[in-house]
Amino acid sequence: MDRLTIIKVGGKVVEEPESLKALLDQFTKVSGNKILVHGGGRTATEIAGKLGIETRMVDGRRITDAAMLDVVTMVYGGLVNKRIVAGLQARNCNAIGLTGADLDLIRAKKRPVQDIDYGFVGDISDVNTRELRLFLNENIIPVIAPLTHDGNGNLLNTNADTIASEIATELSNHFSVYLFYCFEKRGVLIDPEDESSMIQELDSNLFKQHMEEGVINAGMIPKLGNGFRAKRKGVKEVLITNAENIATGKGTRLL
Amino acid sequence: MDRLTIIKVGGKVVEEPESLKALLDQFTKVSGNKILVHGGGRTATEIAGKLGIETRMVDGRRITDAAMLDVVTMVYGGLVNKRIVAGLQARNCNAIGLTGADLDLIRAKKRPVQDIDYGFVGDISDVNTRELRLFLNENIIPVIAPLTHDGNGNLLNTNADTIASEIATELSNHFSVYLFYCFEKRGVLIDPEDESSMIQELDSNLFKQHMEEGVINAGMIPKLGNGFRAKRKGVKEVLITNAENIATGKGTRLL
Repeated sequence: MDRLTIIKVGGKVVEEPESLKALLDQFTKVSGNKILVHGGGRTATEIAGKLGIETRMVDGRRITDAAMLDVVTMVYGGLVNKRIVAGLQARNCNAIGLTGADLDLIRAKKRPVQDIDYGFVGDISDVNTRELRLFLNENIIPVIAPLTHDGNGNLLNTNADTIASEIATELSNHFSVYLFYCFEKRGVLIDPEDESSMIQELDSNLFKQHMEEGVINAGMIPKLGNGFRAKRKGVKEVLITNAENIATGKGTRLL
Repeated sequence: MDRLTIIKVGGKVVEEPESLKALLDQFTKVSGNKILVHGGGRTATEIAGKLGIETRMVDGRRITDAAMLDVVTMVYGGLVNKRIVAGLQARNCNAIGLTGADLDLIRAKKRPVQDIDYGFVGDISDVNTRELRLFLNENIIPVIAPLTHDGNGNLLNTNADTIASEIATELSNHFSVYLFYCFEKRGVLIDPEDESSMIQELDSNLFKQHMEEGVINAGMIPKLGNGFRAKRKGVKEVLITNAENIATGKGTRLL
């Protein structure tokens, strides 16, 4: 099977002009089929603030009322997505920006209200890879914003890490998929202040042990959980890395 | 050649939930290949206002400084575009939202500063229809936001009427193209207050005559100019109509 690299990038990397440029330069160097999945939460929080809309987060997840849904639709689907697309086009990468609503790519169900009402947040129910494969076959590079839809005309806010792992899992039936979670550090660190403390390889037992010992940063836990699930379901390699290393393939490998 | 209907819709129609629903219901009824090109200026003005960014218009064209470019990128490329896409998906129309940057669809040049500095406004230099034709061939419905790019990583704000006529012209080499400009009135009216005064057919001589006599509303002039140019360049039919009539084909026909 052909190789496919899926790179999820969130945080400041995609939101600040200089780091975005560096990321796109590296992304251009990744050979073969590739897909970029991005976040944009900091910009959403900033724009919401300017519009007088309060940002509320629970366990790192954004409470998305109707006003906040409009903000994330604008910021993720418009501002961040189209800046990346234009930047890739300038580098001769034929990118196309997509949300889960486009081509009915990702359907989701509005999360049921239990202890917390997350509002217009979607849990993925269905990933349709037909058109993604058509694009890859035409050397087109999908750039995916963290938005889904419910099939009834409503957009939903969906975690970008989860989108990346779900797409990676579905596409692993057609490609040899390499899934890279890219953030500020060069991998999973034992000591967050010391880059040399990076764990080279992490299996789920070591993950549980580190989690119990509180070694792994709370924000990393869902990301790693997504990564291990993708690995179990057929994704060939899952790597936790930073923008500088997406073309070199260095970072923490999940086993 | 196969028939292709290109519908340009701007104004309140795409920006208010009820009229958007009615439009999408009608659009769903249009048979055969179709493309929707939309505006979103009122929402851009509203969001800009809330963000403390002043809207300045010259001859109906928006002055687009860097802050306003971000607003139109969010509103046209994100909010308005993705709402339409989600709404069409709910009607079993397999829509994909696009800007001119996606797939390098529409390149433009930043308008040179003469009397007025329009800022990040782009005049179209190149329309690439290859992937649009691929989509139409797969029964995918392109939904196009009025944004282009310069090939150097910069997005540009471009008039939606012009985008519609340029795409129509380029695609008329491959399809029998019907271009519908859809707005609030049911056609070109002699008396803007009287819908029964609609002109059934308008040729360029009658257009010039009505223009000189001040019969035609100033805002309609560039729209009609675009329409006549498209007609001259091979578009089979150009119709000025409203959302209610996009499936019936009633309105003012340009000859």
